[in-house]
This record gives sequence, structure tokens and C-alpha cells, in this order.
Amino acid sequence: MKIEFNQFDEEMLNKEATLMTTGNGYLGVRGVHEEKYRNQDRGFFVRGIFDRTVGTEAAELVNLPDITELELRINGELFSLNSPQVTDYRRFLDLSTGELIRSLKWQTEQGDRFKIINKRIVSQKNKEQIAFQLIVEPLDNDCEISVKTGIDGQVSNGGNQHLIERDIRVYDERVLVAEYETIESHLTLGLAMRLNKRGIISAKNRKVQTSIQETCQKNAPFIFEKVVYIYSSLENDYPQEAVKKAAVREIPYEQIAKTAKASWADFWSEHRVVIDSQNTFDQLALDFCCYHLQIMTPDDPQFSVAAKGLTGEGYKGHVFWDTEIFILPFFLHNEPAIAKNLLKYRYFRLAGAKEKARQNNYLGALFPWESALTGYEETPKYAAINIRTGKRQIISSAVAEHHIVADIAYAVMDLYQTTTDQDFMDQYGKPLLKETALFWISRGVEVNGRIEIHDVIGPDEYTEHVDNNAYTNYLAAYNVRSALAQQVGDEKLQQQFAHFLDKLYLPTINEVGLIPQDDTFLSKPVIDLSKYKEQAGNQLILTDYSRQEVIDQQILKQADLVMLFYLQPHLFDFETIKKNLYYYEDRTIHDSSLSKAIHAIVAARINEAEWAYEMFQAACRIDLNDRPHTSDEGIHGAALGAVWLAAIFGFAGITKGEILEINPQLPKAWKKIKFHFYWKDETITIQMTQDAILLTKNSKVKLPIMIEGQEYLLEKKLEWSRK
Amino acid sequence: MKIEFNQFDEEMLNKEATLMTTGNGYLGVRGVHEEKYRNQDRGFFVRGIFDRTVGTEAAELVNLPDITELELRINGELFSLNSPQVTDYRRFLDLSTGELIRSLKWQTEQGDRFKIINKRIVSQKNKEQIAFQLIVEPLDNDCEISVKTGIDGQVSNGGNQHLIERDIRVYDERVLVAEYETIESHLTLGLAMRLNKRGIISAKNRKVQTSIQETCQKNAPFIFEKVVYIYSSLENDYPQEAVKKAAVREIPYEQIAKTAKASWADFWSEHRVVIDSQNTFDQLALDFCCYHLQIMTPDDPQFSVAAKGLTGEGYKGHVFWDTEIFILPFFLHNEPAIAKNLLKYRYFRLAGAKEKARQNNYLGALFPWESALTGYEETPKYAAINIRTGKRQIISSAVAEHHIVADIAYAVMDLYQTTTDQDFMDQYGKPLLKETALFWISRGVEVNGRIEIHDVIGPDEYTEHVDNNAYTNYLAAYNVRSALAQQVGDEKLQQQFAHFLDKLYLPTINEVGLIPQDDTFLSKPVIDLSKYKEQAGNQLILTDYSRQEVIDQQILKQADLVMLFYLQPHLFDFETIKKNLYYYEDRTIHDSSLSKAIHAIVAARINEAEWAYEMFQAACRIDLNDRPHTSDEGIHGAALGAVWLAAIFGFAGITKGEILEINPQLPKAWKKIKFHFYWKDETITIQMTQDAILLTKNSKVKLPIMIEGQEYLLEKKLEWSRK
Repeated sequence: MKIEFNQFDEEMLNKEATLMTTGNGYLGVRGVHEEKYRNQDRGFFVRGIFDRTVGTEAAELVNLPDITELELRINGELFSLNSPQVTDYRRFLDLSTGELIRSLKWQTEQGDRFKIINKRIVSQKNKEQIAFQLIVEPLDNDCEISVKTGIDGQVSNGGNQHLIERDIRVYDERVLVAEYETIESHLTLGLAMRLNKRGIISAKNRKVQTSIQETCQKNAPFIFEKVVYIYSSLENDYPQEAVKKAAVREIPYEQIAKTAKASWADFWSEHRVVIDSQNTFDQLALDFCCYHLQIMTPDDPQFSVAAKGLTGEGYKGHVFWDTEIFILPFFLHNEPAIAKNLLKYRYFRLAGAKEKARQNNYLGALFPWESALTGYEETPKYAAINIRTGKRQIISSAVAEHHIVADIAYAVMDLYQTTTDQDFMDQYGKPLLKETALFWISRGVEVNGRIEIHDVIGPDEYTEHVDNNAYTNYLAAYNVRSALAQQVGDEKLQQQFAHFLDKLYLPTINEVGLIPQDDTFLSKPVIDLSKYKEQAGNQLILTDYSRQEVIDQQILKQADLVMLFYLQPHLFDFETIKKNLYYYEDRTIHDSSLSKAIHAIVAARINEAEWAYEMFQAACRIDLNDRPHTSDEGIHGAALGAVWLAAIFGFAGITKGEILEINPQLPKAWKKIKFHFYWKDETITIQMTQDAILLTKNSKVKLPIMIEGQEYLLEKKLEWSRK
Repeated sequence: MKIEFNQFDEEMLNKEATLMTTGNGYLGVRGVHEEKYRNQDRGFFVRGIFDRTVGTEAAELVNLPDITELELRINGELFSLNSPQVTDYRRFLDLSTGELIRSLKWQTEQGDRFKIINKRIVSQKNKEQIAFQLIVEPLDNDCEISVKTGIDGQVSNGGNQHLIERDIRVYDERVLVAEYETIESHLTLGLAMRLNKRGIISAKNRKVQTSIQETCQKNAPFIFEKVVYIYSSLENDYPQEAVKKAAVREIPYEQIAKTAKASWADFWSEHRVVIDSQNTFDQLALDFCCYHLQIMTPDDPQFSVAAKGLTGEGYKGHVFWDTEIFILPFFLHNEPAIAKNLLKYRYFRLAGAKEKARQNNYLGALFPWESALTGYEETPKYAAINIRTGKRQIISSAVAEHHIVADIAYAVMDLYQTTTDQDFMDQYGKPLLKETALFWISRGVEVNGRIEIHDVIGPDEYTEHVDNNAYTNYLAAYNVRSALAQQVGDEKLQQQFAHFLDKLYLPTINEVGLIPQDDTFLSKPVIDLSKYKEQAGNQLILTDYSRQEVIDQQILKQADLVMLFYLQPHLFDFETIKKNLYYYEDRTIHDSSLSKAIHAIVAARINEAEWAYEMFQAACRIDLNDRPHTSDEGIHGAALGAVWLAAIFGFAGITKGEILEINPQLPKAWKKIKFHFYWKDETITIQMTQDAILLTKNSKVKLPIMIEGQEYLLEKKLEWSRK
């Protein structure tokens, strides 16, 4: 369970830093090296700390003061991985323990050899706590060691300054405390760094540093430790006081690490998907997904998941539909309380969504395409300047990608179906269903007696401003149907919902069995996409065609129908799904990182497990590949969630409905899969081989389960085999 | 005439960048390497571009978008000076031509060798123009070369963001144009970069880049050139249009270099101080001074000289008394028009000075201790937080270092005496003399019938808040006496001036022949300072003693009396100067970079040429020394000016009065000195050996000159020898 980068490669630095992020949902620390290297982007983020600074159009998840940098000198010589005298180099993030470790040997120019080990771990229970350790072991002679480290507030988001220093203090020459404030949002941050050695402290312009110098004996290692605490005014009235207090006590690194490792052990025993695959990489990929899902997700109803988690500045830390559709299900079936918090975040942001609806002359709640701390739309109105024409284009997603409204309603129903939590439905679900349904009835237009939904963009962003996008219309219908079923609103409103459902146009199969993605898609010209499909994810097509040309042809970034089949499998028959999957996949470049895993699920459901497996493997390599720079600005959060979805809803063949259905589709390479699955207030342990299923749970409640079309009752144990 | 750094040393990077700055008084480009290295601080400055951004207390000279960075790859391998395969490394700034050159050979890991040369030159006539050249010569095989460069506005002053992007454009895939605006001062900047090759352009968040890829044949060098133009709204209404227009035409590097080199040839033929010294370093040091004096000084009455010139962020680019007392004289005797501009800058900033006087209940003009674009006081009220107590101390210099008022008046008189420019005196000089004199008469307090000046800080900043600082009182007297002599103000004011002069207390020698530096200095305890004097410039004393303890003892950063003797030699007799120089120098640590050169002048004047030479040599090494980090934040502008002063007014023995006096004091190591000296509208060429002087000039005007106490008349040529 290790993510390893055992070669120092400047080209891979930022990808490595992203993949090796340590965190706990409250904070994330990019896995950067302690030393400075050119082009290495440090990053430290706390959920919810957004700021819209001078000259920016959107709030950004603030890159916080750096705490990771450490300058090491031995006998006056500055240590660097660029030195040719570095050997036995190893660096890995141990997913099983959450610990990031680097170890190596270094020979200085004077000829002395040293063993150097750096460790880093983020607490899981005390979410504000991060611990670092450096061990230097002289292998030949005594030496003089000096380290310089501290809190560096001279940071920015790609040049955008968000922080002002309010206070910098030092106590006992070994506790550094700093208070910063964000420029526009006026959030206060307190940081404390407790060191296990006293040093010479200096402070200048948002930066406080300690310099420690020590003589070190051969075979008596130099052990340097620092523990960092961070609070913000979002959860603490006096963050500076709080971190100062936290840092009063000296806690050894190993003690913090022990507690954190115990948390991770619990996590893995409860939530790991264990696979016996011919390709051991599959297990690593799934572990990687679960690890990152866990560290990207806050457990607090005031915050949601950034598209890049807390691993980088990409997408400015904004929240998209990614959360509800791709990330929430992992928690729903593992830690449902967190899934509830993610939807409460939307509930608490209804004001912004209602304001956006009002500004656009709609009723109800139009959730922003990009959401941050306030819940008001954060998508910049205009894209970056076109450097050739000097013009700026309007960004369409916030204007037309309205399916997010139905996606949130879908997640509400998904959660309700899974948890049967009526209190949650009454308090948070119903208001969300009501406002979202209200939005849709105002969003529809009556054309010749039927209701249509015009001028939208579906999940497929290579098709813009179309009428009756199938995904959107079906999801909107489900949204309103759910509101009707939950009896939200008064009788008049219920009648409006019924009318909407009665009149809403839902595209069905045409004479050749195809469901049109929208009113015009099937009439557009088709081109050979094989060249671009080979380079999926790179948006290569946009170098050969203008955006408008892409829009005007049958070219998909991801297939909306496939997405729809995944979410609403019961609405379509096997043949329809099969025919349309083949048709649309053929026209899909998979330039969206969300695409392949979902296609894999739908392919598995039509018994194309090997094709599904191919797409699954590609999806696993969206972050975990050998190409530099693919993840520099952060992990692909939703894509990681989708890999988990593919394993559970694709290969393990789970379909959710009134009762749970299992239609296993393990690829040949997989001998076995085992995981826990929360469903109807029960945690079911599901084990599956190519021919058999073993279901177990602790309670005696009888749970109906459908396996390959046959209904069973699971009490404590259910064994099934294909013959 | 070369400043050389022929070894790549990460510790020396920022010092090297400061010393090797190229510029022209309008702009300065730090001599950073093209590649990124950790801790290497890039810097690009244009005089007058100040901004007081969110969270800062003072305007800062804005570090402008970087234009120097260039990433070079050969056969895909990223070039770095960290590579062990770099040989034949040489880097130097040729002071005679203003060109910065780096040349080296590099062997890639694949084994191919390349010669790589980087050149950089700043135009002297077209002040907005900077040219760069890169030559890569494959020595073994054909290769693939790629370079990436551009305009990077993601810069900051130590983390303080000052710039917002207004526009980014590209023309013909090889002209990059960017417009930025400062956040608070709303100054607009236009930058254009013209490349000699077309590339793939990308832009993101205040940064525009081109990527150029080319196959290069063995023995056919790859020549890459870029020319950068910069204008600001301070001198151009449409800076973006102006730079775009300037960049339309392709001008080869060599053509720009040729013109710039011709300007430098003229500069050196007119202004070089040529020395025949046993220590060749002396000549280099003087050349280095003249070079930097030239590139740090704007030739525009709206701007003055920053303490660090345009070489770094130190002192935030603010203007101090350094300009008038240490830098202006070089121009006064070389290019008097520039000296006039420097004083016009003060004239145009009288509003700020009068406002500061008003706020402090004084009359006239109290010039700010730190001045920037507006001319209002820029010294922050409080020093940085004391990280142990959490308190902030009031910065005393702006509160009490009032001698700057008299220093400016002194420079007015110096200029008038030297140029005899009555127009300048009438238009600019007299208003300055009037307002400064007015300040002093309001600043004095009558005590028992005599006027005293209380609670000041003299140039010696290790003594604070004293009464009757000798330097201040004598300079104030000269200020008011000059105002009286120039008959500024009405009769009433003239009477007030006369009364002030009549009553002002001017400290004279006490019973043991000492002039007290102030009312209390001579009664303070004395300690042995030898340990600190050995480490002059490092403020080592402040690690052993608190600031208050330093203030309470006879400890000097620089000696005020010595400064006074330098500026007003005629007021004191030989013995007084001698006795007081010995006394006060003994108590002087020379922690101020302004100290030693001035002491050298006064020592030379009391016939202590060898002692003077020792101090001169130390002064020459304030920037030009082997210790890392001594000049990281910029050159010591005033110290460089002072080195020139020491050569001219110390060793060449010039004393200015109604007539010019020459009392040569060449140190033994110097066989000869030759320089041009502007005086009374004439340019005199002065040549001097240990025993003889040769004076020449072009006009037939008869100029009285006093040599060693005897008056001569210089017509076209005057030969003098000690016999």
C-alpha cells in the first residue's frame, strides 16, 4: 500500500507532491520535499479558507503559510537532492499508515557520509495537528548540523496574495506562533510550530524562522521534530490563542504517529476494497482512491469537497457536481454521516442558490456551478483573455450547466434510499427537493403542449447550448418526481409538479433504437476520433478544431446517455443500454477524467466485463501514471471516486433500487473482491469470486437482496453460487 | 573593468545578482541567472513605480514582472548550473560596456557537449529597452533545443503582491505584450517582449510565455534573442500602446549592444577616475562605484535615487539623505544637470515636506526621512513586531532625524557654489532654502536666552533623542545662514533668520579640545569596542547589548563630528579636527556603510593618508567582498558614492570654498590619479602624482585655484610640483 517515487526527478516534483499529499479532510499538506527546488509548488490548505483578493474574480482556496520547508546543512554544506552524492534514495507515502517517508544517504563534498530520514504525518483525530521528523545519522565522523525552518506567510496562489500578517510571536525560543488574516474574506488563521530544540529566531514580512545548530556525534543520530497546529476563525473564535495553547505541550513525533496510524488502521479495516487481481496495480489504485477520498473530505456540514481536494490550487478549491455524483457515494456506503454533511452543506447554501435563480428569473434554487465558502456562484463570468484577439468569452458552464440542481436532488434521494433516515429527509432533504423541483418547473418551457428544457449543457461539455438534453431532462424529471413523492409543498405546488411530469418531454429511442442526446446531436456530422481517443484526457482535439467546430460535430467529452444509464438503470432495457453505449462511446474521446470509470460501470452491466476492465484500468491511471505534470495542480477527486464506483457498481454489480440487486461482473483478472457496504442501516460485508457470493452482516434484520434476478433474504449470512 | 563570479555558488547568488545589475537610471535588472535556483531573488525595477499594497505601511518600489527567466532544454534535458557536467564556466559584468556575459560548456547526460553563452545589455539612450541573447553551439551532434521564456507578473516584493493584470496579448506569435496596474497607486505598466523566433504561446494568471523548439545542426549555433520594452504611466499616457509600437521592429541584439557600448565608452572617457595603484583592486572598486552611481540615478526631476538604487528591494526603494550628501556630488562634478534634477525632486516634493512640518507643529518644510513617489513620509510609524513581547516600537528616524532638512539645503548651496547657476537658485534653490530655514527657526527652542535644538538624532543612529547634536546644529546654522545670504523671504523673515543665527548654540571645543557630539555624549561611559570594530558593518554590538544600552554609552555607528568636519572643513582648525577625529573614531564601530569613507576623507585632510587608505579600502569592500549575503537586498548606494568622495575629496585633496583648494594626500600605493571635475562652469582635468599636479581645461577663463595654500590662476593648463 505504498505510493513510491524512488527517483528524484525535477519533472515529477509537482505530481509527486499532489499524489503524496497528507491530510485529514480538515487540512491537506502537499507532499513537497523539505528543500526548495525550482518549479516545486508548495501547498497547504484548510477546507473553507477562501479569499477573493484584489484583481481576482472568484474566491480561491487560499494556499496557506508554508510549514514544510526545511533547509539542512551539514558541516556548512547545503543539502540538496540535486547532489550527485545522494544514494539509497527512497520516498513513499504509506497509504496504510498515512505516513510520508523519505530516506537516503548523502556524501558531502568533504567526503563524510550521512543517513537522512524525513517523516511526516497528519493527525486524524486532532485534525489541526501535523508532525514532522528529521533524522540525520553521521556514518563516518562527528559533524556540525544546522537546520532552518519556520512558518512562511510569503506565499501566494500563483502570485495572488491572500494573507496579511497580524501577529508573529515566539515563546521559549521554540514555539513559533503566527496569526494571519485573509485580505477580503477577513478570516483569521492561527499557526503554531513547536520544535523539539531551541534556536535563533528571526521574523520578517510574514515569515518567522528558527535556526538550530548542533554538533552531532557519529552513531548518535540528530533527531529534529516539529509539530504544527492550525486553527481558523471558521471553527475557533481565538485561533491564535488556540494554537498557542495546543503547542504548549511537547509531544514526540512517534506518539502522534502512533495515534494517526491507529486511525488509518481502523479506516482500512472498515472501508478497504480488497481485491485479488492478477494485476496487483488494481489493489493499489483502489487503495489510492480510498486514501484520497478520505483526506479530501471534510466532516463538517459547513464544507464540501473541492474538485482537487486539499491537494492543490487547481479549480481554486471550488465544489462542483463532482461531490454529489462521484464522491458522496463512497461515504454514503461507508460513513453515511459524512455523506449527510455533504448534503447539509448544500442545504446551508440554499440562499446563494435561490439568489442565483432569482437573478436569472427562475424560481427555487439554482445551485452555483462552482461553489465555495458563501455558496454564491463563484464561476468567473469571463474566461481568461484571448491573447490573440484581446477579447474575453463568457464561461458557459455557470450559465447553462444546470443539471447540477438535479444532481443534488438525486444525491438526496440516493441518501434517503440508502439510509432511510426520515429525520434527515424532513429537515434537509425536503427543503432541497422542494427548491430544486421548483427551479425545474420554472426552467421548463411549454412548446406545443409539451414541456421542454432549452439551452442547457449536459455533463458532456463538448456540446453546448442544446435543447432537451436527455441527461438533464431525465434527471429533472426524477427531481420533480421525488419532490412529488415526498409531498413537499402545498397542494397547488404538488399539482404543478404533477403537471410538469405529465408534460415534460423525455427523449426515447428513435426508429434505430437510439436515444438522442439532445434535439440536434444525431443530425451532426461524424468524424473519426481514434487519434484523439488514444490521447484521452489531453483535449488534443482542441488543437485541431476550434471549440465551435467540436460543438458542431458528434464529438463527446463524456457521454451523457451513459451517465444517465449509470444513474437510472431501471428506466432503460438491456438492449437500449447496449445499443446506445456502443453508439455513444464510439463518439466519446473521454477527455473528461470522469468518463471512463462510468463507461466501465455501464459496460459491465451489459456483460462486457473485459471492456469495462480496460476502461477501469485507464481510469485508475488518471493520476497514477508515469507522465509528468498530469496532476500538478491537484488530484482528480471525482475520478478517484468514480474508480471506487466502478469497482462496486460495475464489477461487483450492485444496482440500487427498492431492494439491492447484485449482478456480479468480475473481470477475468479478478479472483475475488471483498468490501463493506452500508445499506438500509446495515453494514453488509460482501465477498465475491468469479462464481460465488458471500454476504454477511451482524444484525438479525432480514434484508431482501436480489442476486442475478432471484430474490433472497439476508439475515446474518447468505451464500450464493452460480450453480 | 570586470566584476567576475567564475564559480557557481548558490550562497552567492543574490549578492552576485545585486552587483551585476544592469540598468540606466530608469530601470534596473538584477543580474540573476536565466534559470531558476532556490533562493535566487529576481528583481526588475523602474524608478518611481511605487505601491502601498494591502497590509503594508509604506510604499514599496515594485518588483516588476520578470523578463529574465529562460528555461533551456537540450534533447529534452533541462539545463542547470547544478549539473556536474558544466565546465569552462565564466560569468562577468563588463563595466566598460555594461554587458553581462555568461559562457560555459555543458555535457548532457546523453554525452553530447554544448557551448552556451548568455548575454544581456540595457540600452542607455532608449532607456525603456533591454536586450538578451542566448547562443547554443552543439559541439558533437545535431540536437533538439527548446527554450521557454516570457513575461511573468506572478512576482511580489517578498510576498507582497502589487500588480494586477489588465491585458495580455500576443502578435505574430513572437511579440508578447502585457499590461499591469499597481493595486493602490494605480500606475499602469506596459511590457513588450519581442522574440527573434516564433513559438507556442500560453498565458495564465499574469504570466505569458512562449515555447520555442528547434532542431540545431552541429557547428551552426542556435541564436535566440529577445528585446524587452517597458513604459509606465509615469512617463507615457498609453504605455501598452507605446511598448507595442516599440516592439514592432526587429532589432538584432548586437545592434542594441553596439549603441549601448558606445554610450558607456563616452561615460568612461568623461567620468572615470583613473588610478595607478599598486593595488589594482582600487581601480576596479572606483569603476564599480561609478558604474553603479550611473545606473542607479534617474535623470528626471520627478525622481530621485533609492538607497539600493534599482538593484533590490532593500529599504523599499526609498530616498534618504544618502542622495544629497553621498550621491549628488558625483553628478555635481560630472553631470551637473543630473544633480540639478535630484534637487528639483525635492523642490517638487515640498508639499509633503510642508505637510509633515505642519503635522508636527513646525513651520516650513520637514522633509520625510524616507521619501518615495509622493514625497510624503514613508517611514512606517512602527517597527516590526517584537516577537518576544508582541509590542511594536516607534521608529525614531522619522520622528527625530531632522538633519535631512539641512542636508538638502546644504546640497542646494553645494550645487550653487559649483555651478553658479543663478536661474536654478532663483527657481528651485531659494524656495528650498526658505522653507528649510523656516523649519529650523520653528524647530529651535529658547533656553536661557540661547536657541537650542532638542530631541534629535544625528547621522549617528547609535545615539538617540539628544539635545544640541553638533552636526544638526551646525548644518541648521548653515541652512539658515544660506537663506539669509540668498535673501529669501521678506525683511521680517530675514530678521528672524538673523536672530536665530545670533542665538543658536553651536557647540565648541571644551577644556580638553573636544567638541561634544551633543549635550550628554561626553558624560556617558566608555567601553572597549575593538571586538565590534573588527566586525564593522555587522551590528554585532546589538547581540551583546540592548539598543538602549548602546545609546547610553559612548558608542557610535558613525561619527557625527567627522561628518561635520567633512562637510564644513573651514569652520574648524587642523588641531581640532585631528583631536576630535582620533577621539570619536576610537568610539566608532563603523556599523554604518557610510562611515569609513567619510572618516577616510577627514583622516587624509589631517595628513593621515595611510590610515585614510586603510579605511578607504575597507569602504571599497562594503559590496565588493567575498562574504555571501552582504548585498543580497541591493547595493549600498551611498557607500559607493562615498568611495568616490574619498578619492576626490580625500586623496586628491580637494576642498571646495569660494575657490577650489587642492591639498593632495595620495596614499603611498597610488602613483597617479586622473579625473575630470566640473567646477564653476568649467570641466577641469586633474592629474596628480605623489609630487606633482597637472590641471588642464579647454576654456581660457582664468580660474583661481589654491594648491597647498598658494593661489594660482588656471587658464588652459597649470603645472605644479612639490619640487
